[in-house]
Amino acid sequence: MKSSIHSVFTTKVQPTFLQRLVIGIDNVKASILKGRNAGIKNPNKTIIPPQFIGEKRTLTQVIDEAEKLVQHQDGSLLFEIGKDLGDLTKNIHKLLGSRHSFLNTVSKYYFKSEGKRIRPLLVLLMSQATSIAEKQYKIDATDFYQITDKPLTKHNDLLSYNNKDTIYYPTFSSSGTIILPTQRRLAEIIEMIHTASLLHDDVIDNSQMRRNDISANLYFGNKMTILAGDFLLARASIALARLRNPEVIELIATIIANLVEGEFMQLKNVQNSTMSIFEYYIEKTYMKTASLMAKSCQAASVLGGATLEVSEIAYTYGRNLGLAFQLIDDMLDFMTTDEELGKPTGADLKLGLATAPVLYALEEYPELGPLIKRKFSQDGDVEKARGLVYKSNGIEQTKLLATSHCQKAIDAITRLPKSDARNALIELTQKVLTRRK
Amino acid sequence: MKSSIHSVFTTKVQPTFLQRLVIGIDNVKASILKGRNAGIKNPNKTIIPPQFIGEKRTLTQVIDEAEKLVQHQDGSLLFEIGKDLGDLTKNIHKLLGSRHSFLNTVSKYYFKSEGKRIRPLLVLLMSQATSIAEKQYKIDATDFYQITDKPLTKHNDLLSYNNKDTIYYPTFSSSGTIILPTQRRLAEIIEMIHTASLLHDDVIDNSQMRRNDISANLYFGNKMTILAGDFLLARASIALARLRNPEVIELIATIIANLVEGEFMQLKNVQNSTMSIFEYYIEKTYMKTASLMAKSCQAASVLGGATLEVSEIAYTYGRNLGLAFQLIDDMLDFMTTDEELGKPTGADLKLGLATAPVLYALEEYPELGPLIKRKFSQDGDVEKARGLVYKSNGIEQTKLLATSHCQKAIDAITRLPKSDARNALIELTQKVLTRRK
Repeated sequence: MKSSIHSVFTTKVQPTFLQRLVIGIDNVKASILKGRNAGIKNPNKTIIPPQFIGEKRTLTQVIDEAEKLVQHQDGSLLFEIGKDLGDLTKNIHKLLGSRHSFLNTVSKYYFKSEGKRIRPLLVLLMSQATSIAEKQYKIDATDFYQITDKPLTKHNDLLSYNNKDTIYYPTFSSSGTIILPTQRRLAEIIEMIHTASLLHDDVIDNSQMRRNDISANLYFGNKMTILAGDFLLARASIALARLRNPEVIELIATIIANLVEGEFMQLKNVQNSTMSIFEYYIEKTYMKTASLMAKSCQAASVLGGATLEVSEIAYTYGRNLGLAFQLIDDMLDFMTTDEELGKPTGADLKLGLATAPVLYALEEYPELGPLIKRKFSQDGDVEKARGLVYKSNGIEQTKLLATSHCQKAIDAITRLPKSDARNALIELTQKVLTRRK
Repeated sequence: MKSSIHSVFTTKVQPTFLQRLVIGIDNVKASILKGRNAGIKNPNKTIIPPQFIGEKRTLTQVIDEAEKLVQHQDGSLLFEIGKDLGDLTKNIHKLLGSRHSFLNTVSKYYFKSEGKRIRPLLVLLMSQATSIAEKQYKIDATDFYQITDKPLTKHNDLLSYNNKDTIYYPTFSSSGTIILPTQRRLAEIIEMIHTASLLHDDVIDNSQMRRNDISANLYFGNKMTILAGDFLLARASIALARLRNPEVIELIATIIANLVEGEFMQLKNVQNSTMSIFEYYIEKTYMKTASLMAKSCQAASVLGGATLEVSEIAYTYGRNLGLAFQLIDDMLDFMTTDEELGKPTGADLKLGLATAPVLYALEEYPELGPLIKRKFSQDGDVEKARGLVYKSNGIEQTKLLATSHCQKAIDAITRLPKSDARNALIELTQKVLTRRK
């Protein structure tokens, strides 16, 4: 039963849009299923585990629920998103071209497992939600239909890429919201950049696994993985240039810079003298996770011609969602078991990383200080740190901080006009908080 | 005597613009000095070595000559270039910011040795040469003075970079040519992208040396070198976005894509079924070397508002110069000795690479085929291939092909109005052909 979720992709039958949607959006939902039985390992103390809203459901129930979401109200909004999300992989493959088959194979390796797709989903929903908000300027109708895939200049290459002027259509939902072709393209670019950063991070961190699969560096080797990451970034940059929007180009370029700086901060993990260890951690989290969500939401609104106020709402929503997303991720690292994720409990500790639960525990147990400093490198450090985290209120406090960021995200987004997309963004925020995977 | 060329940089005395110019432009010239006595190793056959125009000169003579170039005609043109070139490193350091000192250290590692600077020099000279050619549109006078270093959006980061609106002045030469601030910025971006590609290539190729220094991957480790390359690319992308010119952004983005594809083609070195082995080599050379020169020349002209015809001239010049540059590089690989470059003769062969001299030799000696196919991996392959190259006309034919590309470059550039910059570009072309290093 459990394997049938994947069989949609492993069999040669093309999934329908509906099936794609069920998988695409519902990876978040399906997570409620998996890992439901993960308890908090706490050998020393009875603590109150964070309250999870999700219920244990069968796969059929989850798919049923997803189908209800599809037929949500007038049955159009989420179907449209589902189609746009379903086309994502196909479109990214087009953007990558087909000249260097091996390089493409490596690049596409991380797209095949579909993943959570939370980043492109965010871009698409934010595009819809801001489409009915106040505009700084009216988008020219011709902009709606066309993204040039022709190089601006004649001499771009000896060889041509997808040198076509393709007509793309906006997605009008019957509830009045719109996704522009440029915003759909942005979703693709964001997923490419995210994947490029995964590829390089996996080389840098010597990763073994990624999304329950062997990581690309192990599978293809470091060289090809570096090149594939560069290749994705380069292709994303070309696609970005063709959006012809300097503000958006700058926003996305800073995302790439932030990703690098975040990875660097994580690698060094030495706090700056002007920052507390917690501030350093939050800064790293912003750089590595929240910046991409914040700026891609903002960029989506900018492409739609949003006012400064609206684009600030989009940024604030994405930033807070991203921080909450990572805080929950760091919390879950202490709550998962080997069976579920193929990821051992306290995996971050083993990597030498002191995340929020540990940093909160440090406030109660100063003896964690030296362990953090030496990156849990001595025998028994990981176990000792884990024990202290469970004894402390670190996990609850992490959840509380994530909750407050989710609240800020919801506060921001409710300043936009009511729409199905706005509801979906609010729902997404709540799911970030209650996810178990 | 020989070491004094470097002492300008190793002593703490700030070099004057003139000194910087002497070094910056004259690395090409100084090359005539070094390696003058490199003979062609030819144990089997007396061949006619390619005719070199350069004469043996002392260091003083070379500097004298460079100073004459500085005072060229009205004494202004090359002085201005020299100043712009001298400011390059300083400006790049500003673009990199100072937040992550170690990351900056790695990134800056390759800037410290100054290198040949041929790429930014090209951009600056092409900017001047096209500034007096026909224009598609008149550049707005305010564009002359200002590049915003302020992010376009308020929420760019928790932390600020160089968030200043800086006023930059164009460089007017008394001969009437102009370098715009945006073109100077382009020169910096191009050097950053080139350096990023060196950093990643060094990791991928497991390099040991770079410009007579230990390569960054050995010195700082692979992880930091990958990150530093990403960091440079990201910062270059932000600076690029701030040029606010979609056509230029696209051109530079395709340069990055081409660099990756070129490195990939070199790494795989398997020809496509639709291409001959020589076509594959030329294609790889375009991707890895000529594309950057072609498109950065073209981008310089576009920033100056050049007509399509002028920008095509710029592209054609850069493309042919780039191909010639690499062909000569590949030829010199068979003509240098260990003493000169710290690079052993036939270094490319040892890396498994079949470059133009080998591919020409293959036409005369088909027995090279299997060696090329197995990438000179068996004992004695390198020596056998080298012997056959010396026996063949491979070196002369490579020189001839380079000469024909230089001619095409000169033919293109002479279609621009006469100027000192045009002369300098022609001279540069001739020097590419006669360089010994």
